[in-house]
Amino acid sequence: MKTRVLIVMGSRSDLPGLQGCMDQLDAFEVGYEVRILSAHRTPDAVIALSEQAKDRGIEVIIAAAGGAAHLAGVIASSTPLPVIGIPVQTSALGGMDSLLSTVQMPSGVPVATVAIGKAGPKNAAILACQMIGLKDKEIQDKIIAFKKEQAEKVLKDSYVE
Amino acid sequence: MKTRVLIVMGSRSDLPGLQGCMDQLDAFEVGYEVRILSAHRTPDAVIALSEQAKDRGIEVIIAAAGGAAHLAGVIASSTPLPVIGIPVQTSALGGMDSLLSTVQMPSGVPVATVAIGKAGPKNAAILACQMIGLKDKEIQDKIIAFKKEQAEKVLKDSYVE
Amino acid sequence: MKTRVLIVMGSRSDLPGLQGCMDQLDAFEVGYEVRILSAHRTPDAVIALSEQAKDRGIEVIIAAAGGAAHLAGVIASSTPLPVIGIPVQTSALGGMDSLLSTVQMPSGVPVATVAIGKAGPKNAAILACQMIGLKDKEIQDKIIAFKKEQAEKVLKDSYVE
Amino acid sequence: MKTRVLIVMGSRSDLPGLQGCMDQLDAFEVGYEVRILSAHRTPDAVIALSEQAKDRGIEVIIAAAGGAAHLAGVIASSTPLPVIGIPVQTSALGGMDSLLSTVQMPSGVPVATVAIGKAGPKNAAILACQMIGLKDKEIQDKIIAFKKEQAEKVLKDSYVE
Amino acid sequence: MKTRVLIVMGSRSDLPGLQGCMDQLDAFEVGYEVRILSAHRTPDAVIALSEQAKDRGIEVIIAAAGGAAHLAGVIASSTPLPVIGIPVQTSALGGMDSLLSTVQMPSGVPVATVAIGKAGPKNAAILACQMIGLKDKEIQDKIIAFKKEQAEKVLKDSYVE
Amino acid sequence: MKTRVLIVMGSRSDLPGLQGCMDQLDAFEVGYEVRILSAHRTPDAVIALSEQAKDRGIEVIIAAAGGAAHLAGVIASSTPLPVIGIPVQTSALGGMDSLLSTVQMPSGVPVATVAIGKAGPKNAAILACQMIGLKDKEIQDKIIAFKKEQAEKVLKDSYVE
Amino acid sequence: MKTRVLIVMGSRSDLPGLQGCMDQLDAFEVGYEVRILSAHRTPDAVIALSEQAKDRGIEVIIAAAGGAAHLAGVIASSTPLPVIGIPVQTSALGGMDSLLSTVQMPSGVPVATVAIGKAGPKNAAILACQMIGLKDKEIQDKIIAFKKEQAEKVLKDSYVE
Amino acid sequence: MKTRVLIVMGSRSDLPGLQGCMDQLDAFEVGYEVRILSAHRTPDAVIALSEQAKDRGIEVIIAAAGGAAHLAGVIASSTPLPVIGIPVQTSALGGMDSLLSTVQMPSGVPVATVAIGKAGPKNAAILACQMIGLKDKEIQDKIIAFKKEQAEKVLKDSYVE
Repeated sequence: MKTRVLIVMGSRSDLPGLQGCMDQLDAFEVGYEVRILSAHRTPDAVIALSEQAKDRGIEVIIAAAGGAAHLAGVIASSTPLPVIGIPVQTSALGGMDSLLSTVQMPSGVPVATVAIGKAGPKNAAILACQMIGLKDKEIQDKIIAFKKEQAEKVLKDSYVE
Repeated sequence: MKTRVLIVMGSRSDLPGLQGCMDQLDAFEVGYEVRILSAHRTPDAVIALSEQAKDRGIEVIIAAAGGAAHLAGVIASSTPLPVIGIPVQTSALGGMDSLLSTVQMPSGVPVATVAIGKAGPKNAAILACQMIGLKDKEIQDKIIAFKKEQAEKVLKDSYVE
Repeated sequence: MKTRVLIVMGSRSDLPGLQGCMDQLDAFEVGYEVRILSAHRTPDAVIALSEQAKDRGIEVIIAAAGGAAHLAGVIASSTPLPVIGIPVQTSALGGMDSLLSTVQMPSGVPVATVAIGKAGPKNAAILACQMIGLKDKEIQDKIIAFKKEQAEKVLKDSYVE
Repeated sequence: MKTRVLIVMGSRSDLPGLQGCMDQLDAFEVGYEVRILSAHRTPDAVIALSEQAKDRGIEVIIAAAGGAAHLAGVIASSTPLPVIGIPVQTSALGGMDSLLSTVQMPSGVPVATVAIGKAGPKNAAILACQMIGLKDKEIQDKIIAFKKEQAEKVLKDSYVE
Repeated sequence: MKTRVLIVMGSRSDLPGLQGCMDQLDAFEVGYEVRILSAHRTPDAVIALSEQAKDRGIEVIIAAAGGAAHLAGVIASSTPLPVIGIPVQTSALGGMDSLLSTVQMPSGVPVATVAIGKAGPKNAAILACQMIGLKDKEIQDKIIAFKKEQAEKVLKDSYVE
Repeated sequence: MKTRVLIVMGSRSDLPGLQGCMDQLDAFEVGYEVRILSAHRTPDAVIALSEQAKDRGIEVIIAAAGGAAHLAGVIASSTPLPVIGIPVQTSALGGMDSLLSTVQMPSGVPVATVAIGKAGPKNAAILACQMIGLKDKEIQDKIIAFKKEQAEKVLKDSYVE
Repeated sequence: MKTRVLIVMGSRSDLPGLQGCMDQLDAFEVGYEVRILSAHRTPDAVIALSEQAKDRGIEVIIAAAGGAAHLAGVIASSTPLPVIGIPVQTSALGGMDSLLSTVQMPSGVPVATVAIGKAGPKNAAILACQMIGLKDKEIQDKIIAFKKEQAEKVLKDSYVE
Repeated sequence: MKTRVLIVMGSRSDLPGLQGCMDQLDAFEVGYEVRILSAHRTPDAVIALSEQAKDRGIEVIIAAAGGAAHLAGVIASSTPLPVIGIPVQTSALGGMDSLLSTVQMPSGVPVATVAIGKAGPKNAAILACQMIGLKDKEIQDKIIAFKKEQAEKVLKDSYVE
């Protein structure tokens, strides 16, 4: 399967939390590559990876980090591809630090930020596929089907005896 | 020019603040349509607009709202297209209310959130073009050129006597 | 028993947390219906439910949601009935996101917001009955008795040896 | 015109900010009385006013206060009527103090809290009329007309050239 | 032992958390009375208790409450005695709601607020004794001795091998 | 007039903001001394002043500071007298930094914290006089008269035509 | 004068706010170079500048940025020199975003963070000189003299008539 | 081994949390002394320790405290040496109180603040060694080696199968 999404996380400890992201990409049959790289410990490697992503055929980059979460921002600085940022929940401040460090990007360098916590990783995958869906009707149809199925499941479970 | 981006805002008073968004789309020569609609006063119209967007050829939807900012979320619920949310700055809480109402979306319905304040609208335009750039090489090349030019301007102005 | 209150929650996982709401309505012998519907996954169903509520004889709607909690706001947009919002506590931000998304509604579309956490669901039920009590003296008398009994219990338990 | 709503504010300086509340009640032709009383400087008077409200024919009480905003809570403790709290914006903390002091009420004593800032006072009036509308079809019809008119105005102004 | 301090708490569940307050008063041999009363469920009883406190020989009142914590403020409104407020930690917002509801009192009605969490109750007792120490040299001497002893303990344990 | 209250502030720029404190002490005819000293620039002088305060006949110390507001805490560490802390409003964080630095004192060293903003300084003066009132019936009577007069003024101005 | 400190800021608009930093370095006669470079627009240039700093004889780097303030962190990732971060005040969130993005650095890559607002830039200069003072007795003596002079000025202005 | 770093913490309960700081100094073979002293219980001892530090050969002081965390600030007031502050995580407010009390220092008295939580203590040690590295090439070389090794470890573990 062609690698279309690049998932980068700041620490191996973020890996279990990102399972929902990978599962969702699997469900949509969108190929991805996972890398663990730190904006602060290996800035050159992060920038190199970002600069090469487009030419390697990557279409969207998803970056997850916590605290002073610069990973998504550093990646966004080095690629013309859309970059999705997942703010990782933190024990001290609940992820408010991660959220603000990810979303409050300066003019010229957007990061498409999703929710702190459990919803974020899955939503990052869906958002990536919505972007890819702009050019790939098959993926867009899967998004449409997913939304329909999701709605049906909610409706079916809607009544409480 | 073909309309590729739909910009929706919750109130006419948000219009001046979104000028940076429109200017950037103009600069990238990407066609857009602007609508003022409230998720709370005209939910049916917002949903209808969102549901029809894809078939009208819209590729990305940008939604700006403040306070209990549901506009982007309601739109995202009714379209398979990627939706970008701009949290509008508020006088009481600085926009923290807008940010949390926009970004903390539940599993299944992402909103690609950008910064509160001045950077947000321009960045929403850039992010929309990065997404469109996935299928339109010309737009992607404009993003690449924009980033290069932006970097050159920074470098040229870098020295302080 | 006539259904006078409609309780809507965003997710089945919110059901146990809302037990206090249902118990209080039971205690006041006020009939209610419980529905699990998501403002983001099934917006049409939420709006249809809200639009039909008045004609079905519903008098008050209670909505509970967490994170970017749009449920109460979307309901309030589609009914002339008073809508009570319960901000559900969240693991990342404690429910501050839910509170701001519920209470900071724009001009024209109020949501009567109660507390985050354990007190909220029970208080939503009491508030609903206070509203119904405006037209139904029997319910208002139950509120008066409840408040008196509550005060007596506090007074009886007031001394610490 | 019969007095159906009692508006209480903590300080005369809150009066201009509450004009939107009074205007909206005037628009709905619902009679109201305005009192300036402090939960902290005249607790007895606030409690007496609250205790007598129902027998005086008052149907809903609206209370506006800022900072450690106890006014709505103290009123709610002394009446079976529904109480709406308006958290007044504050210069130091933007009204976050007013919001939390108003909304985070303990089990048994709800305050129906509306938004900090400009939307709050107008929405308090609408919410009061939604409650009164439960027993007074004429008022409920005015709410329905108001919502329709509001939606039409939004739709008419929706297009941006 | 003469009752000089009145401790009021909003809920019996606050009792264990206040043990440190009672222990410290015991250590200083200052008599106290403990009452559980709610500003919201029994406002009249709270006001009556506060109004009578001075004539009963009470010198300082300590009030502990959480959430929309009005207890200390309501007491302060009804007595010329100094009132100390303890903001109780809350599960949703950590006690930020309790703190702001306690400390942000309006002009004319101060509440002497101490820390959220474990330090608060003990410190409330010490502060009460510092106030009583203004008129009772024996208590002031105990404060002086306490501070000296506390410093000596810190100094003795200061070294880490 | 005997000096009974010592007012210390961290910076001369805090002086106008503290006028309400001095005016209130003047109104109660309680003598005070004002000193401008910084916990961070002149720690020795602050500690010396605090250590000598009791023997100079000072009864209460009021300390006002902003940001990382250590002044009240440092004073409280060096005197058995009760210390009142006024958190000064700050331009960046509204005074939340001042409040937390003042109120969150560790076990053993309380600071009686009053409100950020305009109410704080006046309330610090009232609180100081409530403490002094424990030993000085004349001052306590002034507090009682002040509260009565304040209530009467509120009641007189209570009606809005 | 030898260039010992490198000051980097994210935007030319930060220049006036940093005057206090430059003035203080001038006062201590420590040479510095000022560069305007963006972590997000010119990451390569920032990294190159950081990597070369030590070999160019720079001893300390000061970085000022606002919002998702990654500048100090990116610099810290690319140099063994100590890096001081100044969180720039922002209009939406007061600089809380800048502070958390600067200070909450992950393990292995510290940024020495100073205050948001006016005190930060001057303090960054003093801190840089305290570091340089470890190897340069002349600079350390200037710090000692500065602190003494500062204390004397406070003491001289301490009395308020 | 020569004592070059002085670590001071406010409470023995902070000791386990600071192990990462001590381990890192051990790894760099930099000698340190650990003291437990409270800014609030033993201000004189803290000031004396700070004033003597330079003459005892100490080069950097690290201070860790929580809540109204004045320790680093009080130390910084009494020494020309650079002072690093570690804000200790707190149960009520997550350490936001500790952070603001440590970082928001007034003009003239900087504290080099590091992250709340687990990263802070280790980073304080690294920052101290970066400062010492300005005069001691051996230590600076260890920092360079540490950063290289850290990057290599990240790169080696970067791939996820």
